[in-house]
Parts: sequence; C-alpha cells; structure tokens
Amino acid sequence: MSDLPTPQAEEQTEEQTRESHLALEQDVREAVWEEDSRWLSRTLNRLYPADAADLLEQLSTDDFAEAVRLLDGQLSTEIIIELRDEYREEAVDVLPDEAVAAVLEELDSDDVTTILEDLEDERRERILDELSPEDRASLEHGFAYAEESAGRLMQREYYAAPEFWTVGHAIDHARDNADDLPDEFYEVYVVDPAYRLRGEVPLAKLLRTPRDVKLSDIMEEVQSDIHVDMDQEEVAYQFQKYSLASAPVTDEAGRLLGMLTVDDMVDVIQEENTEDFLAMSGVNSADGSDTVLDSVKARAPWLAVNLITAFVASGIISLFESTIDQIVQLAILMPVVAALGGNAGSQGLAVAVRAIAEREMDGDASRRAIVRETLTGLANGVIFAIGVAAIAGFWFQSTGLAITIGIAMFATFIWAGFSGIIVPLGLRKVGADPAVASSVFVLTLTDVMAFFSFLGLATLILL
Amino acid sequence: MSDLPTPQAEEQTEEQTRESHLALEQDVREAVWEEDSRWLSRTLNRLYPADAADLLEQLSTDDFAEAVRLLDGQLSTEIIIELRDEYREEAVDVLPDEAVAAVLEELDSDDVTTILEDLEDERRERILDELSPEDRASLEHGFAYAEESAGRLMQREYYAAPEFWTVGHAIDHARDNADDLPDEFYEVYVVDPAYRLRGEVPLAKLLRTPRDVKLSDIMEEVQSDIHVDMDQEEVAYQFQKYSLASAPVTDEAGRLLGMLTVDDMVDVIQEENTEDFLAMSGVNSADGSDTVLDSVKARAPWLAVNLITAFVASGIISLFESTIDQIVQLAILMPVVAALGGNAGSQGLAVAVRAIAEREMDGDASRRAIVRETLTGLANGVIFAIGVAAIAGFWFQSTGLAITIGIAMFATFIWAGFSGIIVPLGLRKVGADPAVASSVFVLTLTDVMAFFSFLGLATLILL
Repeated sequence: MSDLPTPQAEEQTEEQTRESHLALEQDVREAVWEEDSRWLSRTLNRLYPADAADLLEQLSTDDFAEAVRLLDGQLSTEIIIELRDEYREEAVDVLPDEAVAAVLEELDSDDVTTILEDLEDERRERILDELSPEDRASLEHGFAYAEESAGRLMQREYYAAPEFWTVGHAIDHARDNADDLPDEFYEVYVVDPAYRLRGEVPLAKLLRTPRDVKLSDIMEEVQSDIHVDMDQEEVAYQFQKYSLASAPVTDEAGRLLGMLTVDDMVDVIQEENTEDFLAMSGVNSADGSDTVLDSVKARAPWLAVNLITAFVASGIISLFESTIDQIVQLAILMPVVAALGGNAGSQGLAVAVRAIAEREMDGDASRRAIVRETLTGLANGVIFAIGVAAIAGFWFQSTGLAITIGIAMFATFIWAGFSGIIVPLGLRKVGADPAVASSVFVLTLTDVMAFFSFLGLATLILL
Repeated sequence: MSDLPTPQAEEQTEEQTRESHLALEQDVREAVWEEDSRWLSRTLNRLYPADAADLLEQLSTDDFAEAVRLLDGQLSTEIIIELRDEYREEAVDVLPDEAVAAVLEELDSDDVTTILEDLEDERRERILDELSPEDRASLEHGFAYAEESAGRLMQREYYAAPEFWTVGHAIDHARDNADDLPDEFYEVYVVDPAYRLRGEVPLAKLLRTPRDVKLSDIMEEVQSDIHVDMDQEEVAYQFQKYSLASAPVTDEAGRLLGMLTVDDMVDVIQEENTEDFLAMSGVNSADGSDTVLDSVKARAPWLAVNLITAFVASGIISLFESTIDQIVQLAILMPVVAALGGNAGSQGLAVAVRAIAEREMDGDASRRAIVRETLTGLANGVIFAIGVAAIAGFWFQSTGLAITIGIAMFATFIWAGFSGIIVPLGLRKVGADPAVASSVFVLTLTDVMAFFSFLGLATLILL
C-alpha cells in the first residue's frame, strides 16, 4: 500500500500531492473491501481529524458504514465531529450506544448538541441513560432552546471572572483549574456577583498587562449583543460586523449563559449562503440531497409552481393564436424575447437578493436601487433591442418584424429591470424570504410581458 | 434631534429600536444638509465604529462625500476601515493626503494594504511620501504579493517566540513589549533561529500552563499550511476546514512571514459566495454595481452570449416551421416544455455548483452525483410528463398532443438532470469556474432538447 502522507511531508508539487491523495483514497477503499481494520485505523489516526474525515467522505455511504463497523469503536471522536452531517449521522447510526455516549463525554456542549439533534427520541434517551446524571442534565439543557438559536449553538464552557480579580489572579486561576476551562477561548468574560456580563478581556490584552492590574480596569465593552433566543443568522451577522473570534451569550437580564466561537459561525454563514444559493434556483433544502427521493422532494414543489406559471404564459400566447397562425415567424422569435428578458430580470434579482442578505438594502439604498435597476434595464434594453431587431430583420427580411421585436424587447427589458428589484423588496416587506420565491415571480412577470408585448405589437403592426 | 442610542441602552422592543434607528438616519442626513459638523462628529464618535459606518452608508454617495468633507479629518480611522469598499474609496478620495497618511500609520498592515489598493498609482506615491521611510518600506512590501493572495491579506504584526522560551518568559516579554504586539492575536508562533515555524501555542493554553514550562513542550503542530502565494479561496477553505481563529503564513522555506485572522477570512468567504451567487445569474462582478454604467458593464456580456444561444434555440424551432404552421397549438405549448426543463436543469446545476464550491464533489462523489441527478430527472420527468400531458390534453382536447408533450417533457427532464451535473463537472475539468459559465450552457442544452423533442415528435406523431 502507498506511503502514508504525514503532515510534515517534504515539499511536493501540487500534481504529486493530488496523485498521492487519489492513491490513498483507493487504498482506503480497498482496505474496507478487504476488511483490513488494522491498516485502516492506523492510517486514519495518523492524519489530522479533518483530513481523515475528508478521506472517509470519499467512500460511498455503504462503504463508509462498513468502515465504521470495521473500526469498531476505534474511530476517534475528533474524526466523527469533523464529518459532514450525512456521514456523521451514518456513523452514529452504526456505532453502539455506549460508544456514542463515550464520544459525547469528551466533547464541548455545542458539539454534543449537534450529534444528539440527529438522533431519534428513543435512541437519544438510551444514550443519555449511559451518561452520568450531571452530564445528562447539562446536555438536556441545550435542547430547551429553539433550533438555529444562539442557545442551541453555544457551548456552556467558558472562562468568567469577577470584576475585582487582578490579571495575576486570573492567570493563576486558569493554571489551577486548567481542566475545567474549554480547550479554546479567546476572551475572559467579566461578570458581577449576579453573573451579569460587565465586559470582556481579550487574552492578548491579559497577556500584555502587569499582574497587579484589575480586570475591571482593562476590560472592554462587549460590542456584540447576543441573546440566547437570537436566530443564528442574526448572530452570524454580528460576528461579521464586529469581526469577532468569540462572543458571550446572555439571557434577557444580561446574565452570562454561554459562549459562541467563530468556527461555528463560519459554518452558519456557509449554511445560510447555501440555502440562499439553492433557493434562487428553486431547490428547497440542502441537507439530504443525497438520495433521489430527497432530491425529488426538495425540487418538485417549485417545479409544480413553475408548471402553473408556465401555463399562464401559454395562456397569454393562446390569446394571439390567430396572429401566430398568420405569421409563423412569431413562434420562432418569441422565445428570444422571453429568454433575454428573463435573463435580464434574473441578473437584477440576484444583485438585489444578495444585497438584501448582506443588509445593504435599507432605507435610501432601496430607493436608489429601484432607479438604478430600471435605468440599467433601459440601457441594456436599447442595446439588445437594436441587436435583436437587426438579427430578426436580416433573418426574415422584414422591417416590420424587426421594429416589432425591437420595441417588445425594449419594453421587456425595462419591465425586467423593474421587477427584478421590486419583487424581492416587496417579498421582504411582507416578511417572506426574497431568496426563496422571487425567481419564479420575476420569470413569470417577464414571460408575460415578453409574449404579450411581442404578440400584441405584432397584431397591431403586422396584420 | 433624537436621543443618541448608547451601546448600553435600556432594553427596547425590536420595533422601537428600528424606529429610533430610522430617526437617527434622518438626523444624520439633515445634519449633512445643514452642515452641522459638530453634531455629526459627536454622534459618530459615540457609536461603535461598525455602527457609525453602517449609518454613513445609508447616505447617498454625494451626501456621504459631503459628510466626510464636513468632518474634515475628524472621521476616525476605525470608522473608515469599517466602511464598505465603495464608501471607503469615496472617503479616501475626499480626504487630503496627510489625513490618509495619518490614518495609515495607525493601522495593521493588512488594513493599510486594503486602503492603498484602491488608490491610483500617483496618489499612492504621494501618500507614501508622507510616511516615515520605515513605514513606507514595510507597506510597499505588501504590494509585492499578488492580489487575492495570502501575502496581500496577511498582517506583518504577530507574536513569535523561540522554542527555548518558557511560558513565564513569553508572558513577561509580552508585558514589556506591549506596544509592538498586534491588538488582537490568538496564538504565539514558535520559531527556530532561522525563523522557520516550529509550532504554535494557543493563548488559552499559554494561560493554563505553569510559568516554568518550555514553549517547545506545549506547542502544537500547525494544522494549516498557508504559503504567502496561496490564493485566498484556498486559504479561506483551510480556515473553515480546521476551524481556525488565526493562522501563520510562511514562505517556501517554511519561514514565518505574517499572520491571517479569521475576520479577514470571513470577508473573503462572503466575497467568494457573492461572486458565485451573482455568476450563476450571469452577473460578472459584485463591486461597483453602484452606477448604471457599472451594472451594464457587469451584465451585458452574458446577455450577449444569451442573445446568441437564444437564436440557436430559434433556429431549432425554425426547422419545424411548417409543422407549427399546420398545428398552431404547438407554438402555445412549446414554452412550457422549455420552461420546466430549464428549471429542472437549473436546480441540479445549483446543487452541483454549490457542492463543487464546498469541495464535496471529488472522486467517487461525482460519479454518484451523475447517477443521482439523472435518476432525479427521470423521477420528476414521470411526474411532470403526466401533469403537463393531462393539462395539455384537456385544454386542447387532443390525445395525440397530450402524448407528444408528455414524451417530450420526459425526455427533456432526463436530459436536464444529466446536463445540470455534467456541464459543471466538465467545466471544472477544463479549469473553468463552474459557477460562471454553466448556467447559459445548461439552459441552451435544455432549450434545444425541449424544442427539438417536442416539435420533432409532433411532426412524427401528429402530421
């Protein structure tokens, strides 16, 4: 079997790295087929957990489940945590209850919540039974908070200190209680006797300050304001806005309850981005696009909506049945007007949806955007009306047809620019997510305009 | 004028917060119009820089420039840094050279690079002349690295210590050299005498460890492997993969050159997400969609490509001119086949592009995805072929037309599923960005299939 790549391997060209990586993937697959659990376990444990998890995710789900079974409890906790959702669920499904419980005991509370969330109620109960009563009580606590809330994401391990402590006291306390502190933290939270958050001291500042200075003298105001019930999207926004590495979570009375770290927030940001990205193309959810049934379920609803809107567009065309019957070229050209208009509308829509998601579309900005988008539609309308008219006129040797399609194209572009911005702003106003439903509205509006203006003008001008 | 909101304002309902925010926006706008620079400067300086920047971004670009002029050097460095690109450029344009130079002297090198990047060469020279020779040399260094590389993004301020130092030594050194250390850092980098990176000690670990322990005994291996020339997309990927708060940047020989922090990486992640998001709808770039001219420039190229592909689809239709001439209902129904097929293709495409961007589409995963997408096309094809056939048959009271559109729909869906995955994978293979060009290919392929199968079958079955 091929050499194991070690983290401090010699410099390699990118090509070599890629090749040895592919060879390793193949070796892992073969080890699973040959049931070589010893080689497998040794190989995975020599890699960084994130790299080992990547490697396992290259296996098919069946091979992966087989690998977990082969490793029989030797799959390390760190690797399980690094796995993508589908694979982690699979691993937890395959592992016995005691092994899952053992994994849970080693983790920070936010990671535990992530794993327990995936389980069915009955199995979760069984696994919680394996834990000590203290651990169990603390874990069940996390489930009291809504999904996608700060409370669900936070960890209950953090470093808090009273205001009157000195820097020296804080450092000594950390040394004496090393085991009770979380592995990673970037700030000491300063609290009053009622555990209300008073400020924070970044570790870099703690390190720079003489031992006898009081924490209350160097603590900084906490910029973020994250309540335990806050939605994860808002939390992620605060992390971005204030450039945070971690942030305290408080209850309504301002008492410290937990801590959020940026690595979890990066995951949230990516999750929200994926949701928006897929929603724009009419895919309902990202998780579990792994089976055909999941894919159909995530996509059929918007196709069904599109089925209706497509027949609405057909209805418009059918109004002009006799016009098309007399000038068949209209049937050939009408998809051009619809395609270009739809494209122009989608462009404006994408810009608007993204700006809304990044909160750059408040107050005055949205008024300016409406003007800008309509004018952009007008400008592109002039360009492409001339282009389309020239091609159509030349193709069918008809000035009338050229004038008809040119005017229709121009009107459709202005309408597309206007709908591309007004639809998402309108959806936001009524509290809907502009990423989800805008696309189908904008495309229907532009189709209707395209067919109506082109065929209507043709009826007026050419008949 | 309304009360200033202070960071520790009393609890307010969300509605009240929003109202007072809008009132503040209006007050700022009026202060600019009334040239009340004193109120403006006092108000902005009482807010967090990120909040003050948000507030200024609500102004139109003209009002904003006027505000900067009014403040006349009193606009704080922190606020300038927090501004979005367009506004920061505007601010730097308005401020005199000396004011910009003064801003630069207070910043970490990565932020300085961000500002200098925006300037024209001549003005950059003039501003660099205002700085001390040391500052100048160090700043010019950043420009030696390619745009969007780790070298351009990194800061040259970090905390490095030799292996033989103890924890106590490291803490004492930090206290004695407080001013030379960056404001924020999360790790001490351990280097050998040749400044080669040997490991890192997270501050949380430094804090927990007794004074007499040597750094070499507690240092951890650096998981990330970030070279100074590495593209920012790859860097951001490593931050996500290894859940980093900061990471060292090295040269080819492994020598430490600088440090990257996660807040900069979150910006990069959002930038890359925005690029992909807009590219999928045929918008070339996100920056400077602020004027109509910029918008036209960012969108016209893909509309031009679409112009060509739309006429290709028209060409397919024109092959069946005489068929349509005999059965005008075909013209009414053909956009339904194209719209639904295009939608199905876009859905698969969005899932594939996102999976490629998140690196979940390597090796075996792509083979499985091709099978899954084609089968999803088949499954949705059955559902919607029946649906469309039923509606069309009922509408036009024609079994032949129902059968024709049903079969065409079915074929188009399978084809759409297949193209939605094969096009982005193919583009990746030839080194193109699948987010940028996929959409137009997939839509053209489904249009061609839709028109060809529907009109072709109609010619065979119905004539």
